[in-house]
This record gives sequence, structure tokens and C-alpha cells, in this order.
Amino acid sequence: MNPAAAPAHTRAAVLSIGDELVRGQMLDTNSKWLSSRLLDLGVETVEHATIGDSREATTAAITRLAALAPLVVITGGLGPTADDLTREGLADAIGESLVVDAPALEDLRAKFAKRGRTMSPMQARQAERPASARCLTNPSGTAPGLAGVVRAGGPHGASDVWCLPGPPKELEPMFERLLAEDLRPPRGLTTRVRLLTVAGLGEGDAAKRAGELMARDRNPLVGITASNAVLTWRVMYRGPLPPAEADAEIERTVAALKAATGPHVISDRGEPLEHVALAALRSASRTLAVVESCTGGLLGSIVTGVAGSSDVFLGGLLTYSNELKTALAGVDAALIARHGAVSLDVAGAMAAGGLSRLGTSDCLAITGIAGPGGGTESKPVGTVSIAHARRDGERVEVDARTFWMPGGREQVRAYAARTALGLLALRQINSERPGPMLFESVR
Amino acid sequence: MNPAAAPAHTRAAVLSIGDELVRGQMLDTNSKWLSSRLLDLGVETVEHATIGDSREATTAAITRLAALAPLVVITGGLGPTADDLTREGLADAIGESLVVDAPALEDLRAKFAKRGRTMSPMQARQAERPASARCLTNPSGTAPGLAGVVRAGGPHGASDVWCLPGPPKELEPMFERLLAEDLRPPRGLTTRVRLLTVAGLGEGDAAKRAGELMARDRNPLVGITASNAVLTWRVMYRGPLPPAEADAEIERTVAALKAATGPHVISDRGEPLEHVALAALRSASRTLAVVESCTGGLLGSIVTGVAGSSDVFLGGLLTYSNELKTALAGVDAALIARHGAVSLDVAGAMAAGGLSRLGTSDCLAITGIAGPGGGTESKPVGTVSIAHARRDGERVEVDARTFWMPGGREQVRAYAARTALGLLALRQINSERPGPMLFESVR
Repeated sequence: MNPAAAPAHTRAAVLSIGDELVRGQMLDTNSKWLSSRLLDLGVETVEHATIGDSREATTAAITRLAALAPLVVITGGLGPTADDLTREGLADAIGESLVVDAPALEDLRAKFAKRGRTMSPMQARQAERPASARCLTNPSGTAPGLAGVVRAGGPHGASDVWCLPGPPKELEPMFERLLAEDLRPPRGLTTRVRLLTVAGLGEGDAAKRAGELMARDRNPLVGITASNAVLTWRVMYRGPLPPAEADAEIERTVAALKAATGPHVISDRGEPLEHVALAALRSASRTLAVVESCTGGLLGSIVTGVAGSSDVFLGGLLTYSNELKTALAGVDAALIARHGAVSLDVAGAMAAGGLSRLGTSDCLAITGIAGPGGGTESKPVGTVSIAHARRDGERVEVDARTFWMPGGREQVRAYAARTALGLLALRQINSERPGPMLFESVR
Repeated sequence: MNPAAAPAHTRAAVLSIGDELVRGQMLDTNSKWLSSRLLDLGVETVEHATIGDSREATTAAITRLAALAPLVVITGGLGPTADDLTREGLADAIGESLVVDAPALEDLRAKFAKRGRTMSPMQARQAERPASARCLTNPSGTAPGLAGVVRAGGPHGASDVWCLPGPPKELEPMFERLLAEDLRPPRGLTTRVRLLTVAGLGEGDAAKRAGELMARDRNPLVGITASNAVLTWRVMYRGPLPPAEADAEIERTVAALKAATGPHVISDRGEPLEHVALAALRSASRTLAVVESCTGGLLGSIVTGVAGSSDVFLGGLLTYSNELKTALAGVDAALIARHGAVSLDVAGAMAAGGLSRLGTSDCLAITGIAGPGGGTESKPVGTVSIAHARRDGERVEVDARTFWMPGGREQVRAYAARTALGLLALRQINSERPGPMLFESVR
């Protein structure tokens, strides 16, 4: 590639290739990952497309997308088998034949030798490339990537077409190490994105508080997305200001959003809720346990999904049956009989029991009716009681609340686990009991 | 729509609309869900496309996809706000104006009244439709769907364009209740799909055992996908045979695959591993507990994700710290000191401790090094010990194994939880200790 002749990457298109994707047998996560990373680096994606393992469809899609955008990033179809046809499709779109790339072939041979295997002729296909394209080394797998230039008649002239392997753990390091620095975001156009994490607040309520900050013609533009009871504000500046001034614009909008949504903003760097909650506890030298009923381990799983969580999270109890609520967490059986397993009292007793039996400074407990069965008129499916017990010296404080959560079993469980973490994070960060939270039943 | 004039749905295209999707802020799961359901019903999807919230891009994409396929299913962009432009895009593609659908407007008004709210003029936009299109009732949300016909000049003549709301819990019931029965799979072409669930076997090994059964020109065509250490064989017949004969062809291929992969096939109806494991225990009146270290609740969460799991799954212990392995599961501290927390001995003691303390007939235990930290030369990141303890009368049998699992933290944890379930399911279904499993370290 000759940077002098190459057009700016004013926009990008992403193409995923695979029968298993287009037929719905496997979920494509690469397009989301790539377009998110491209935007971070200043290049906006305008289309994702997914097609099956077909040489003709590949050629047609590359040609169409190259006319649409000066950068096309392709994933999949680079393997050794007969249905891997991205190399051929790119060659046809460029109008060239495939040639063998000698260094790539040598690299492949060495990879097989290292595993004590001989490279088959089928495997050797992976070292082929269109004559004018270059091979991209794959440090985590076998198939090399490809970078070529397609002249498809778009207003931008030529398009860069980058082909990467389908497995995310191969694609992601290749993008970061080999391609990110070759990106040419449009000159004179600055893109800056900031994310804020918001806990305990609904999308409608947040939008109402933000008011004119969310106007569609505003720059920075403010967007909002809700995922599992956690909101993310997205603040994006895209315009002619130099980077430092764009950052200052972003800061002003961020400050206005924080003023509008108050204590609910738990991270102004878009950190996930579980990271924020763990960091808040860690910096106060506190420790966490969980006692889970309807979530059955989901809360513990989210917390321990964070690398390095073991200095804060010590363990938990999955008290799915009522007998185990008593045997493991010491909940009085009479309390369960009197109030029901899904109640403020039982949630509070579970949290206090976990705190005492596991010896932590904080304990979250969840008990609820995730459905589809088990609901009653007074406690329908979606009724969830959540408690946070915390110890300060000799004093134990228990904050128990009941929520009515919408959706089916999976959604109720996901909301419940995040709401428990939100309760903890808001209490720890703001040093006071959080006000009413999203889905909370205030009776 | 006039069925007599309408062409068969020989193929389909799926279009997702939303800035948050194309910019990579949110993952699109609708395209996968829709194309999987369409294939079940005999219609093959040939392309997914995702675009942003733009009237022009929507019109262009509808026109292009309608020329490509006689059925286009769209999700997103049907809400009330200024960036919801699917209605306008469809009207432009048909070449019509928007009109207000009186019954849909009345339905909307009633929905708001029920919640004690007044419908705003902005909300009322949701009752608009292109003049020749019809509105589709949305039982789970506010925005109605749309069904229209676009004549875009494809070889099939006119195309049905179905627009559904973006939230999966609104889209999925609408598709099932309103649209599935309107599908017209190609006449004279029978499509039959069967899935087999395979535990404890790697993709390469399975493909080798299947041999010629996986030839690309075979019909039924056999495909394989791996997800979190569980394989799925997909057997698809597509051809001129009448349905009963196609089913018989599928059965023959399924029998051959079962013969080739032996006891590893745990479901010949594609049921997920966790469903199979729970059903196998349930039918033998057995009960399950878990003791988790590195997975921190993931195994319990997967098991309790299944509705009705409470008659089999009683609870568990999250023994993330070594102290809690001893305090909660009764693992001898000296055993941990001697063999390390990640060892056959400790995994076995965790499983036996859980069995005894939670009083179940079966207990699965997992202890491992999920990374990124904590690895050593002899026990690198990905080393996981898994044990299954089962009680038969007075006898307790413990099957403990060590695995070396590839990938990062999330992958290792996901593999570990599924491998534990696979160990249990294979043991219960085949009534004998499973042979060496995928990733098992046989030393």
C-alpha cells in the first residue's frame, strides 16, 4: 500500500463470511467488535453484511462494499477447507489470480513442524494470496490474513480490503497489532467517544433528566443504551475541532450529564458495573460474599469473570432449595414459613447469614421468582428481593428491597444480578443508602 | 397479500437497523435468531445486513435486498423517536406515502391508557404505515410491526418485506404468532434439519470419525460447530424428496453419525447439554449440587438457567478462597498445602464434601487457573481439575480429572463449566465412566 495515493478511511464496511453465520447456527460477534474498535480509532462503520461460503457472493459483496466505503474489513473464510473462499473472492474482486506467498508458506510449514505434524496440500492453500495483496501474520492461529486494494468505482477511488480469520481470539490481536496503526481516519475530522456507566436508573428516566443534552443535532451527540438494568451514556464528538478542544467539549457534556443524573453515574470511563463494584470495595479493603437463590450462581459468575477478583470476592452460597437457605445460610425456617422464600425478611437474613458465615465485610443476597412457574397474584414472576449486608466495625447494616422485574426467566435473572451489584456500587461510592432504584417496588 | 400471486420464499434476507448496532455499541442477536428459525421452517437466508438509522440507507437496503430475495425480514427502527425511520424507508421503497392505521392507533391509545398515560403525538407515529402495507399487532410492546410488498425487479418478481421491532422479546413472539404461518417455503423442495448434541469430543476428532459423512456434496449435508466444548452436528436435507422420505434420509445419516461418534452423542434432538444433564438426573430421581472455585458460580448459573431445574438442583458452594474450600466444603487444608488448590485430590475432596454437606446424590466440583494470572510452569493458565462425585446407596464414587483448556479467562471458565456437565451427562446416560474427554490431560 502506498500511503500517499491511498484515500482517507472516511467510513468503513464490515463483512462476515460463513454458512454457519448466515444460516443462524452461530452468532457473529466480530462485526460488533470491529466496528466498535474502528469508531474508537475515528472511523465510522456504515454497514455490516454477512454472507455464506460462496465465491460468487464473496466477490459481489467485496465489490459492492468497496464502492460504498474506502475500508472494508472481512472476517472468516480463510481456513484450509473447500468452503473457505475469501482468498478466491478477493482475487476475483481485484481481478487477479492467486499466487503462493513464500514467507507465509514457510511460516505455515514451521507452525505444523512445531506441533510434530506435516503440512498437507490443503493446509498449504492458506499461504495463497491475490498477486498484489500482502499476507498478514497470524500469531494465534494458522491462517494468515490478507490486505489488498480493490478499485470498485466508489467516489473515494480505491478501497483497502483487510481479511482476518473468523475466531475472535485470532482476529482481535491481528487487528490491534497489524492493522490499527494503518487506519487513516479522515483528516480535519476529529472523533472522540466517552462512555459513562449509570446504575439504578431506567432509560426513560435518564433521558428525561438529560433533556436537551440528548438533542439529535447536538455535537457532542449523546446516546443511551440499556443492557441488563445498566445504562451507558455514549458521548461522541465528531467535527473540525482539534483533539484537545474536542476533549474539552466532551468533558463539558460529561459534566452536564453527571449533574443531570447525580449519584447514579458510577463510572465516567464506561467501566462495566462489576469492575466498578470490585474496585470500590478493593480501595476500601473490603471483601464480598454472595448468597444466591433464583440467580443460582449468576452473580458470583459475573463478579469472578473479572480478572483479579479474588482479593475482594471470597465465595458464596447457592441456596436454591429452602432447606439449604436454612442449612447453609442459617435462615430461620420459621421466617421462610411466615414471609415466604421471596421476601424482604428472607433476603435480609440470607445476606446477614452469608456475612457471618463467610466472614466478609459485604454480602449480597438474591431471592426471587424467575419464572416461568412459581408466580402468585401477590408475588408474580419477576418479583425479586435483594439485600446488601455490610459490616462497619461492630455494626451490621442490612439494606433489603423488593423489585418487580420485567421479561422472562433469563432477563429477570440478569436484571437481578446487576441490580444487586448496582445497589452495592452505589452504596460504596456515594457513602449513603441509594434512593429508589429501577424496578424497585415502592409500596 | 394475495397468496395466489405471491412467489415462494425460495430464499430470505435479514436486515437490522440501528446506529447502536452498526457502530458496534450493541450486539445484534436478531439476525441469527431469525435465520435459524427461517431455516427450521424451510427458508434459507442468504444475507444479513446491518445499517444505521438513516431513511436513505433504509430505502436503499430494502430495495437491494428485495431484488436479492423474495422475503426480507427487518428488525429495528419502528419506535417513536426521530431516529426510528423504518416506516419511512419502507414507504419510499414501495413508492407510497405513510397513512395512519386507525385500528393500530386505537390499540396504541389503549395501551397508554392502561398504564395511566396519554399518548403523545410522537408516540402516535408508530401507527403509521405505507398505504398498501398492513400493521402487525405487538403483544409484548408498543410499536406495531409492518408487512408490505416491494417490487424491486428481482427474478422472483415481488418481495414480502416484514418489519419487526428490535427487542428480541417483542420480535420473537410476533414472528412465531403472526409470520411463521405466512412463510411459503419453495414448492417441491423439502428442507429438514436435525441437530445432535455431542459432549466430550473435539471438532477435529469428530470430523475424523465422521469421515465421508461430512462430504460437501452429500445430501443430507452434515456440518459441525463447536461452542464452549460442546459440539453440534447439523444434518440438513434439502431436495426433491417428499417429507417422509427426507426424514428417513435424515434418520439414516443420524444413525451413521451416532455409530461413528459412539457414546458422545447425548441428544439426537439438539437439546442443550444442561437440559440433557438435568433430564438424565431427573429421570433417575437424582439430585445435584455444585462446588465451584475458578468458575465462581458459572456452572450453577447454567444449570439454574433451565426452567424447572429446582427439582434436581438443590444448591452449591462457591469456594473461591482456599479458606472457604476448607470451611464450607470440608477440604482438608493439608491436602491443599500438599497438592495445591488446583489438583485431582482437591477437586475430588470438593465434590465429596459438597455431596455430603448438601445431601445430594451427585456433586460436580471445579477448581482451576482461569488466568490471566496464577499460572506456573507445571500448572499453566487453563489447568482445570474437575470431579464428579455420585452416591449409589452407601457407595460414593468420585471421578476426578485434570484438563488443559485453551483460550483466555472467559473461555477457560466456559469450557470448564460445560466439561463438568458433560462428564456428568455422559456418566449418567451411558452408565459407565466416560473415556478420555476433550482437553483432558492424560499423563
